[in-house]
Amino acid sequence: MPFIQVNLVEGRTEEQRERLTKAITDAVVEILGVSKDSVWIEFHDMPKTHFATGGVLRSGSIRNAR
Amino acid sequence: MPFIQVNLVEGRTEEQRERLTKAITDAVVEILGVSKDSVWIEFHDMPKTHFATGGVLRSGSIRNAR
Amino acid sequence: MPFIQVNLVEGRTEEQRERLTKAITDAVVEILGVSKDSVWIEFHDMPKTHFATGGVLRSGSIRNAR
Amino acid sequence: MPFIQVNLVEGRTEEQRERLTKAITDAVVEILGVSKDSVWIEFHDMPKTHFATGGVLRSGSIRNAR
Amino acid sequence: MPFIQVNLVEGRTEEQRERLTKAITDAVVEILGVSKDSVWIEFHDMPKTHFATGGVLRSGSIRNAR
Amino acid sequence: MPFIQVNLVEGRTEEQRERLTKAITDAVVEILGVSKDSVWIEFHDMPKTHFATGGVLRSGSIRNAR
Repeated sequence: MPFIQVNLVEGRTEEQRERLTKAITDAVVEILGVSKDSVWIEFHDMPKTHFATGGVLRSGSIRNAR
Repeated sequence: MPFIQVNLVEGRTEEQRERLTKAITDAVVEILGVSKDSVWIEFHDMPKTHFATGGVLRSGSIRNAR
Repeated sequence: MPFIQVNLVEGRTEEQRERLTKAITDAVVEILGVSKDSVWIEFHDMPKTHFATGGVLRSGSIRNAR
Repeated sequence: MPFIQVNLVEGRTEEQRERLTKAITDAVVEILGVSKDSVWIEFHDMPKTHFATGGVLRSGSIRNAR
Repeated sequence: MPFIQVNLVEGRTEEQRERLTKAITDAVVEILGVSKDSVWIEFHDMPKTHFATGGVLRSGSIRNAR
Repeated sequence: MPFIQVNLVEGRTEEQRERLTKAITDAVVEILGVSKDSVWIEFHDMPKTHFATGGVLRSGSIRNAR
């Protein structure tokens, strides 16, 4: 039943998502005592043009740093 | 006012989204007594590389099944 | 696998949520051809103090209308 | 700590997201008294094929209007 | 059509939500050129027992600071 | 920058959320190579009256089982 959404700035590899999937699923199964199949995880990529901190889009802060 | 988000693993057709839109909107209008125009629906596609159940990314389980 | 979030302004009854659950689940099963058990639905209540349209909180528009 | 998700139908420009980022961040900093760096904003584009109001996908209403 | 979700740690006042509603709605109307009524905002309170940064629940960091 | 939302059916303890926070934060830090402070986690409780699988609200399936 746990549904976990992982919001990440774009650029991670499939291998990193695989490792995160295993680590998070194992933690949820052990700590909550639910079955492995009941754990759903969605990875959501946020493009640098669509994510901002400190009032600046990530794409903009890269441009400015050049 | 109802805002409905439908998260689906990628691969559905526009015709399926059209039929779901009609069915869900009609149900919401009838059961909640709201106007048709107040029903908003968003379909969110989850790529197979970004969705996991049972500790395995959907893309990984396809690879392993080959 | 479909995960559906239904955001509603607070005040709906459990019977309305039950009817919506049945109608939405049946539509998803028929149109997408997935099993009934794979359909998850979450109802999310938005308090009138926490939802705004047209620049006004719902709670405020009620107050102003008195 | 504020995390703000801005869901928009696709088609906005980066300049519009930049201006929205500044305006929303400034408002949050002033009204909530938090530091600028603690404000996170995500822009989420909804394709016209994936967003419906009034029981019709936006892409469908465009087609029908032709 | 813009739907904006504002996630805040619990404890803000209705007056702060009213001011944020006005500021965000005005910015969206001006920058995107949409009608005021099409702007929806939801404020989502996160209890201190349900929000964590740096590996510690906000409620825990308060407890530890005593 | 990772923002992780953990949706759980209501009834988990603060100790379980603390343990999940530590396990998930540690995994994200190790696998993605980000700083601990950049990891945000929100736990979202879904009341049994507001969560359904297989066409039945969780609260309803409990009632029916009696």
